[in-house]
Order: sequence, then C-alpha cells, then structure tokens
Amino acid sequence: MTDAAVLRDFASLLAIPNVTGEIADLRLNAEEIVRRFEAVGASMEIVELPGAAPVVIGELRCPNPTAVLGVYVHYDGQPVDPSNWTTPPFEPTLKSGDTVLDFPDEGEQVDPEWRIYARGASDDKTPLCVIPEAIASVAHRKVDLVFLFEGEEESGSPNLGRYMEHLQDRLAADAWLLCDGPVHQSRKPQVSFGARGFTGFHLTVYGPSHELHSGHYGNWVPNPALDLARLLATCKDADGNVTIEGFYDDTKPISEADQLAMDALPDIEDQLIADLGFGAAENSEAGYPERLMVPSFNLRGIESAAAGSNARNVIPAEAKASVDIRLAAGDDPVVMLDRVQAHLEAQGYTVLDRDPTPSERRTHRHLAKLEREVGYRAVRIPMESALASVLLDVCHRASGEEVVALPTFGGSVPLYLFEDILGAPVAVLPIANHDNNQHSPDENIRVGNIQYGIELWKTLLTTDFEGIG
Amino acid sequence: MTDAAVLRDFASLLAIPNVTGEIADLRLNAEEIVRRFEAVGASMEIVELPGAAPVVIGELRCPNPTAVLGVYVHYDGQPVDPSNWTTPPFEPTLKSGDTVLDFPDEGEQVDPEWRIYARGASDDKTPLCVIPEAIASVAHRKVDLVFLFEGEEESGSPNLGRYMEHLQDRLAADAWLLCDGPVHQSRKPQVSFGARGFTGFHLTVYGPSHELHSGHYGNWVPNPALDLARLLATCKDADGNVTIEGFYDDTKPISEADQLAMDALPDIEDQLIADLGFGAAENSEAGYPERLMVPSFNLRGIESAAAGSNARNVIPAEAKASVDIRLAAGDDPVVMLDRVQAHLEAQGYTVLDRDPTPSERRTHRHLAKLEREVGYRAVRIPMESALASVLLDVCHRASGEEVVALPTFGGSVPLYLFEDILGAPVAVLPIANHDNNQHSPDENIRVGNIQYGIELWKTLLTTDFEGIG
Repeated sequence: MTDAAVLRDFASLLAIPNVTGEIADLRLNAEEIVRRFEAVGASMEIVELPGAAPVVIGELRCPNPTAVLGVYVHYDGQPVDPSNWTTPPFEPTLKSGDTVLDFPDEGEQVDPEWRIYARGASDDKTPLCVIPEAIASVAHRKVDLVFLFEGEEESGSPNLGRYMEHLQDRLAADAWLLCDGPVHQSRKPQVSFGARGFTGFHLTVYGPSHELHSGHYGNWVPNPALDLARLLATCKDADGNVTIEGFYDDTKPISEADQLAMDALPDIEDQLIADLGFGAAENSEAGYPERLMVPSFNLRGIESAAAGSNARNVIPAEAKASVDIRLAAGDDPVVMLDRVQAHLEAQGYTVLDRDPTPSERRTHRHLAKLEREVGYRAVRIPMESALASVLLDVCHRASGEEVVALPTFGGSVPLYLFEDILGAPVAVLPIANHDNNQHSPDENIRVGNIQYGIELWKTLLTTDFEGIG
Repeated sequence: MTDAAVLRDFASLLAIPNVTGEIADLRLNAEEIVRRFEAVGASMEIVELPGAAPVVIGELRCPNPTAVLGVYVHYDGQPVDPSNWTTPPFEPTLKSGDTVLDFPDEGEQVDPEWRIYARGASDDKTPLCVIPEAIASVAHRKVDLVFLFEGEEESGSPNLGRYMEHLQDRLAADAWLLCDGPVHQSRKPQVSFGARGFTGFHLTVYGPSHELHSGHYGNWVPNPALDLARLLATCKDADGNVTIEGFYDDTKPISEADQLAMDALPDIEDQLIADLGFGAAENSEAGYPERLMVPSFNLRGIESAAAGSNARNVIPAEAKASVDIRLAAGDDPVVMLDRVQAHLEAQGYTVLDRDPTPSERRTHRHLAKLEREVGYRAVRIPMESALASVLLDVCHRASGEEVVALPTFGGSVPLYLFEDILGAPVAVLPIANHDNNQHSPDENIRVGNIQYGIELWKTLLTTDFEGIG
C-alpha cells in the first residue's frame, strides 16, 4: 500500500472500539484482525475460553525458515472518558499539530510528524497495522511467524497463562517478540531486554455511613479523605523513597552489564523533564534508568466526594485511592501486597478484603478495604544473547540509526508467561512514539513511527535468525 | 389545608429545580414563592440586581403589631448529581422507610415518620411551605412580618449584603429570624443563638503537563496526588487538631454561660455516632458542642485521575482538594486563609492564585494554586436576651417539649450581615430533621418536622413579641 492507504487502513481498524472488558466490541476487533492477516497469507483462528476475551492465534510459514518467531500483540485498550478527549476516541483523527486534517488521498504525501489520535493508536494496535503491510511488501521471508494477539492486556492479562497452556503446541517458537510500548524518548529505535512486573491495589477508608453536612458535623466526625491522605503520606518520603517496611528487600541488584548499558543510554533527562512539563524528578539522586530497576509506588488516582467547582460542603462517607507498584526483577507481587497490608495495619488500620458491614464501620475508628490486583513478576534476559544481537542489528538496519538497548522497559508486560509456559526467551520490540498519551485521553501514534514499524518488520522478515533459540 | 394537601402542595414547590447558580430556574422558584405568599395576603416583590440571582422580599402587616419580625429563608439548593440519588432530585418522592408511596389523597392520614425526598426539601424550602400555611390558619396575628428570601445562599451569599444595602429601608425589623438548618439530633425543637462563619479554598498541585503512563515514568516523575496527600497530612494531627500556625489564635474563648448551655444539652453523642455509622469522634477529648466553638478544617473532597474500577495506570497531571473552614466567633476569614497560604509556603510550595503557566510548572518542583472562597465571620448573640426567651417559649408551646438552646449552630449562615447592615439581632430557628442528607444525595424532610414547622409558626404569629428590639 502507499503511505496514504496505510493511514486510511489503520484508521478503519482504530474505529472499532476496543475498551478492555467490552467482550462484544473485542470480538469485532478479533474478526477484523483475522481478515487482515488472512489477506496476506497467514492462517488465523479466534479462540475463546469461557469467561475470557478472545485471543487471535495464527501462523505464517515460509520455505527454509531460519527460525520460528512468536509475535505477541494486544488489541484491547484502556477505558476512555470521551469528555476528556479533544476528538472522540473511536473516531480516528489525523492532525498536524492542533490542526485536524483529512486523511490523504492516494498519491498525496504524508508527513512523519502528523499523528493519528484514537484509543489503541499506539497501545497496541500499531503492530496489527504494520506487520501485514510488511508481509505484503516482502517477496522472500526467512522466518516463520507464530501469532498470539491478546484482548485482555489492559485488564492485567488474567487469562493469558490459561490460553498459553491451552494452545501450547500451536505456540512453539524459538523466541518471542513482545510488540508493545514506545521507543526511546530520544525517538531512537529501541529494544528492551526485560520489563517491569505489576502489582497494585485499591484502598478505601471509611467515615460516616453517608455524606454529612460539614457545618453541622465538621470538626467532630472523622474525615475519611483526610484519613486517606494521612495514610498515603506514610508510604513514601519527600524524596520518593518508599517507606513501607521491606519494600526493597528482594530486588535484584543492578549488575555491571546493566550499569554499562544504562550509562550508554542517551542522556535525555533534562529534555524529557522540559517536554513532560514538570519541575524536577521525584528522587534527586538516582537517574531515570536506575529508577526503573527498583520497584515503584505510584498513586494512580484518588477520589472522595468532589473537589473544585463541584465541591459540596460535606464530610465524605468514604475515600478511595488506587496504587500501582511496578515490580523490578526479584520482587514477588504477593509478598509486596503483604508488605502493604502490614504497613496499613502498623498505622492502626483494621484491613478487610471486602466492604465492611455497618456494624464494623461503627466499631472501628480506622477501617480500610484493600482490594488486591496481584499481577505478575518482572523478567530480564541477558543482554549478551544471540537474540539480543540480531534484534539490535535489525533495528539499526531498518532505521539507519543508533539503537537504544534498554535493560528493562518501564511498562509492565507479562513476560514471565513466555518463559514459564512457552519456554522461550522474549524481548520487547516497540514501535510507538514515547509522547503518545498512552492510557490517557488523546492517545496518538506519530506517522513517522508507523513508517519505522513497517521498515522494521520488512527488515526482520528478511533477516537470518539462525541460532537464536 | 389538610395534612395531605400540605404535602402535595409542598411537592409541587420542590418539583421546580433550584440548583444554586442556575438563574433561569431560580427565577421560576421566585415567581412561585411570590404567588404562594400573595395568596395568603402578603405584598411580595421580586428584586434582581445585575449579576445576582433574584431575591424575593415582602411584608405582611396586622393591626396593633407587638413587633416587626424579619424572616430570612433561602430558596436555592446545592448542586445535584442525579446518578447518586435513589429517586430524581426534582421529582419529589414520598417514602415510608425504603417504600415509595403515592402522595395521600384528601382525608387520608399522614404518618409523621414518612419523608419527602427532593433537593431543597429541608435546605431550605420547608419554611416556604409552612409559613403560608400557618398564616392561612391563624385568625389574629400579633406580629408584622418582613420577608427576605435569598437565591444564592448555597453559593456563599455573594450578593446578600448588596441586596440588604439596596433594600435597607424596606427591611426594617426589630429582630430577624434565620429560618434554616435542622433541629437538634434528639428531634427536640431548637433555637440557636449564633452560627459558624465560613471560609474555604480549592487547592491544586501539579505534576507533569498531562497524565503519563505509570509504567514508563512511575518512580521518576513526581506524583501530584501523593504530593497533595502529603501536603494535606501536614494540616491536621491524628487527633483532629489543626497544625497550621496560628489557626486557633483569634477564637473567642468559651464563656461560663456558653459552657452552662452546652452542659444542659441532651447527651446524644453515642447515639449520634451509632446513627451516623462511624467508629469514634475525630478528637477524643472535646465533646461535640465544644468542637463547634473552635474553627474546623474539613476536606470536602479530593480528586486526581480516577480510583477504583475506573483507575488508569497513570501518573496524574494534577490533583485537587477542596477544604472548608468553619469559623468560630472571633475568627477572621481572610486572616485564616492567609495562615493557610503561609502554611503551604512553609512546606516548600510556591503558591499562586491562578493557573500556573507551562514555564512555571517546569521551574517549580512544588507548585500550588490556592483559590480563596473568603466567606464571612461567625456571630453569637447573648443567650439571656428577651428575644432568646420569647423564642424558646414559642418553641416550647408549639411542641410541648423541652427546647434545646444552642450557643452556636454548626452550619454557616451570614448572620453578620443582619447585625452590620440591618442593625438587628438575629436568631436561628430551624425546622428540618437532623438526618436530612442536607447538601448530599437523597436530601429529605420528615413529615413530622413539616407538622412541627406549621405549629411553630402558628404559635409565633399569635405571640406577644413586645420588648425584643
């Protein structure tokens, strides 16, 4: 296809709503993905286990393959609140800066700095656009591909392991490529040799059984929003160090090879701080790459009654916070959550895993509900492996640029399943721009990154992967 | 009217939406109020100053009045989020417990324990229902009434002083009755000899210029929600004492007369804690009435990104909190807000009164916007005055019960304007039940309190108020 046609074609895929958990919508996506890969010669199939969103699996063989590469992509996206989007999340919109453009006609030039705005544009439908286009563009392939496209990644991949076990003999590969996430903030191509794990929780603390008038009761009835603020404030110090006992105890130390790789990374911190528009990093001592090598504690959101112009003069009845903990290599998700619970208890809270009864609310001054999202561990593969070398070389040849070799990717992807169930090494091969508003309103993909993705996959399909297994 | 007719009639007034700030809706309320008071012989007028919601003023004279009483009511209500209401806020609904009832027909009995659910049912349209009903039921009145019905109380009465100055010669009265708020939590009738003042603020702290993926950036980019939690945690200690420097410096000490009145109040704290469904009071030493005599610091709400099932894996771009400070006698609202600002600055924050520029966000690690809602001071009148005695006697005769004499009402009402502009003493004469969900979803009025209100006003209209001026 021409560049113009590729953009139109991708927009038609992005127009299918893909909010995680919306099974009916996700099935429509799966069917469209099957059509697109079958159109370039792959054998595809939708598999749906009870209670799970469907996966799309498939294969594309060639004569005399040098290796079998597994390709993982997820086609679901984060929830959307359209009122926060500049343009509707499922009406893909092409823009140059703030100017909305018509999608170009055949023969018209495209500008790499244009962007397409839509949920899923970068996280993670891009590979589903560029891989079929690369397959169609290449005459002779040197690798076999095995596909696994998931529809529940943004819900924490609760059934990915089950699918892998169920489909194990159809997912045999010498190595897997996890096609997700953004390239380096310098816009240089990137390969990551690991990813952070994920665990998290929702925390609710309780005040009166319903909102009360703050005039009549303020100063006497405890305020759960302030209680929650006080509780969260005990979890991290002013320099961003987590103060939960044992939080860093299991984390794998940074090796010499890791440190060398990090030292070789482009120095982008000052530029990134300026681009992202904040004053200074949370921790004044460790650099950005080092901060990805220790577990994080991030307050994803907090809610109690209403603030700002909608504020009412009330004592809220409850207050909620959601936290995600990005795990570094060595950390166990359940152990981390146990430490969080012990910390809450050490602050004097009675901690339940369910809603309290009215009677429990009446008998405890400090009562919390902790809802666990267990998640999964982090993975890091050796940076000196054959797989690593050939992937770095592919990226270099596709882009003509120096390639960033990242010891760990910041985002969380369930790499451990590939190791544990499919028994294969796995690397992360991203395409999207870093400034893509991933997980947020106005998610977008830069056109230049789509073009890089197509070149990357054309190069990869024609490369000798012998000896990577 | 019969009891059944009174309920139907009140419901038709409650069906007119009255969200504060919605001027067109408020005008419809004002017109309907004029009709209702003119129907019982009063002369009424709507007055509307530019940029303000209208007030309704009026008078009802009688032969040989013993005094002129001013009657203040507000007809606007707090904002509503219908999704949080069990029944729509402007479709008045009669219920017995959780059972929805048809409004009774003529001749049918009404149960005092029934409730009418609607925004404004108790705060503050009740007097607008019971006063005309009382006027129509009484043959010979002994007092003249002067009316002032406001439409902006829930917005902080920004124009009430302006209206009073403008209408001063038509609002001459020997004393004013502020008809708002609930009776005592024991369900006993109540008169309050003062009310808390109000000041408040909205506080915003800033992180990156837009939400960021918590995987890629969590642990490195500062989290404004956690920064805000840490900042709020510095404002109050674990026992509910405000730790902002100077916060209690100007508060008028509790006098012997105040202490005696508080000691005579029904002891309802344990029952109230059980009814309101929480574990224990915020402060373990001072009792509920004493806590109303010192300024409060109440976190009305907090918001940053989303928590719970809508949580996204992001670092929020900003976090907002709204706080109200109920002022005790002696406290100055501007001085209090200055102390809050000094406290924020002492925590290392640069404090603006407007949105920061992108450049300011990039140059300050700790940046806050403080939006002031200045409000007004508290007022307390002497409990040994003639006005106090006669009002306590009226309530006692209307109800046949012991009457609660409260040194200060917990809610905030701009009593200082009556003193400063109209030059008259003012007392607070409530009707509504305490458990009315005022300012919250499912606001309601207990039918028994409507009945008490009618008796109260019938008694008041036929009482000799000589010598109260």
